[in-house]
Amino acid sequence: MDRVAIIGASMTQFGQRDAWIRELLAEAGQAALADADVSPDEIEHLYVSNMASGEFEGQTGVPNALAHDLAAMPAYTARIDQTSSSGGAGVYAAWQSVASGASDMTMLVGGEKMTHRSTAEATDVIASLTHPVEYKHGVTLPSFAGLTARLYLDTYDAPRESLGKVAVKNHKNGLDNPHAQFRKEVDLETVLDSPVVADPLRLYDFCPITDGSAALVFCSESVAREYTDDYVVISGIGGATDTHVVHERADPTTMGGVVNSSDIAYEMADLEPDDIDVAELHDMFTILEFLQSEDLGFFEKGEGWKAVEEGVTDRDGELPINTSGGLKSKGHPLGASGVAQVYEIYKQLIGDAGDRQVDADIGLACNVGGFGNCVTTTIMESQ
Amino acid sequence: MDRVAIIGASMTQFGQRDAWIRELLAEAGQAALADADVSPDEIEHLYVSNMASGEFEGQTGVPNALAHDLAAMPAYTARIDQTSSSGGAGVYAAWQSVASGASDMTMLVGGEKMTHRSTAEATDVIASLTHPVEYKHGVTLPSFAGLTARLYLDTYDAPRESLGKVAVKNHKNGLDNPHAQFRKEVDLETVLDSPVVADPLRLYDFCPITDGSAALVFCSESVAREYTDDYVVISGIGGATDTHVVHERADPTTMGGVVNSSDIAYEMADLEPDDIDVAELHDMFTILEFLQSEDLGFFEKGEGWKAVEEGVTDRDGELPINTSGGLKSKGHPLGASGVAQVYEIYKQLIGDAGDRQVDADIGLACNVGGFGNCVTTTIMESQ
Repeated sequence: MDRVAIIGASMTQFGQRDAWIRELLAEAGQAALADADVSPDEIEHLYVSNMASGEFEGQTGVPNALAHDLAAMPAYTARIDQTSSSGGAGVYAAWQSVASGASDMTMLVGGEKMTHRSTAEATDVIASLTHPVEYKHGVTLPSFAGLTARLYLDTYDAPRESLGKVAVKNHKNGLDNPHAQFRKEVDLETVLDSPVVADPLRLYDFCPITDGSAALVFCSESVAREYTDDYVVISGIGGATDTHVVHERADPTTMGGVVNSSDIAYEMADLEPDDIDVAELHDMFTILEFLQSEDLGFFEKGEGWKAVEEGVTDRDGELPINTSGGLKSKGHPLGASGVAQVYEIYKQLIGDAGDRQVDADIGLACNVGGFGNCVTTTIMESQ
Repeated sequence: MDRVAIIGASMTQFGQRDAWIRELLAEAGQAALADADVSPDEIEHLYVSNMASGEFEGQTGVPNALAHDLAAMPAYTARIDQTSSSGGAGVYAAWQSVASGASDMTMLVGGEKMTHRSTAEATDVIASLTHPVEYKHGVTLPSFAGLTARLYLDTYDAPRESLGKVAVKNHKNGLDNPHAQFRKEVDLETVLDSPVVADPLRLYDFCPITDGSAALVFCSESVAREYTDDYVVISGIGGATDTHVVHERADPTTMGGVVNSSDIAYEMADLEPDDIDVAELHDMFTILEFLQSEDLGFFEKGEGWKAVEEGVTDRDGELPINTSGGLKSKGHPLGASGVAQVYEIYKQLIGDAGDRQVDADIGLACNVGGFGNCVTTTIMESQ
């Protein structure tokens, strides 16, 4: 089968942006068209990954606005929402549009505009994805993270410091990402002494509220060859859910959606966890990087923290994780994050990651919605 | 190529429902599983068509909730939003998931819960899909409809009564649809004497605000044969946009999205407009049935109104349109409508449409988002 390729990508500056969602989407979309050297009238399907433009700024129908703003009409458009993993779901939708033969050239733009709302308001919009009974009791995603972090540290005898080291590593990586929201190193003491948010997690264990957008251009591998030598193929992709009623999970330190979505992706790509050279994980909270690195099969259960302690996941380690800076330092504009993960892997695999460059032929992106409620895993290979 | 088939379908009672969105989705989902004789653990992809559960009731992440409520985990889920054509976009997403090989068994559930909000509030949520500049000037979809109806009547010398006859026909059809919100005949005088909403359109030219849900089960044709003889295949499907800046359109009486999406669908199915035996059109406003019936190629431009006057589109006419009662009498729960259109065509093609049954082997559903901003057209054939 003709595999699906990515031939161009972009991301905007992440951070506090003086631009509305449709402006952010258009900015990334135009840049990706330029990067792929594709004209807007070649785009047949145009997907937008976005969780909540209606809730955040009272604007819906943004894919249609984007088709207008990019002069891509009459390209077919739709919005793909899978809460915080909308970006990964958009990658899956774009992949399906090409793999099914419905579209010869598909663009995905993911974005979110959030910083004009207070942190409490934004957290409440995000919390609306939780089960109504849990929501009613005041549970938000940060509080789930705190409970799970405590359980993980106790169960696997991991030191609190190991969580802090995730933040330190990812901030260090973000220093070399010109698009990152925070380009500043932090030391372990700063992380450990920052204000408590949800015990044992502190401010620096959390990603920020962010505005931003990212875009990708997809086509079949045979079409890709007509455009560029610098393309990557998606060799494996899968999605899966876990119960959104977190208190029903047998073991909250295992993310079933990560296990199941990566099983599908590995099987499709005919690859094993050991084959992965670089990965972008969904470190919305530091604890999530441990859980995903284990549930993806990179490390044994309960040993993800040791890999961070030993530098295995550093940029110069055996398996660099979150070379982009991760959600932690790059920022987390909900609908953009999964797209920006794939942007980073694409850049690494075509050797265009600048100061962040690592030696990699095979990369993986894992995008998590809710508290592991729905997950997409994408495996890419350089050519 | 193995075509994509529909092997089961359901729709809930449409109208004012004492149930939240996740209850409505689960109700239709369970019924479609039963209709298809498929167990929840066979579902690999589960899509939800929904425009605005966050805006209407502060609940997001509904696909994940549905996977839980149907015991379909770890099925992959995502929400597909294309405003009022979210249902048609969901059909396209489900088609792509099977056609790409990503999923062997896909369920789509479309739904919306709206009636707990006032008509003004609901209209405002819907109007948030318009261009910000048009929105700022108070333009809502009903006002676009009024302006376009006036232009159509003047341009094509059509009598005001012809619009009223769309309402009369569709109410008559809805009388035999047990799921319809309004099961009552209306006469032309009632329509023409109803209160003005957006001149020349009156109350009975508009579809109501509605709660409801509908569901479909998709698989490849070869898999379908293992389950049932009563399946239909999707032989053509396409989607397209038109500018959402309605005042920029060269001719607002032509819906470019309908023209372009149906061109794709006809070509894929290798069919002509004349081949269609029955159609469900998006009669959110009576004028839209004229425009679509022309832009789909059923009638010459400016002559759609004559077809209604002459009874061509009656249930016993040459080309029955909206045998379900249409959005006009059946109701218009945004995310459900495009799914319910396909439900009706499915029922007609397998000969299970009860008192609404017509003689048909090939059917078409046209689902319109915004004021023609984005459109999907689906062509189905009986086996």
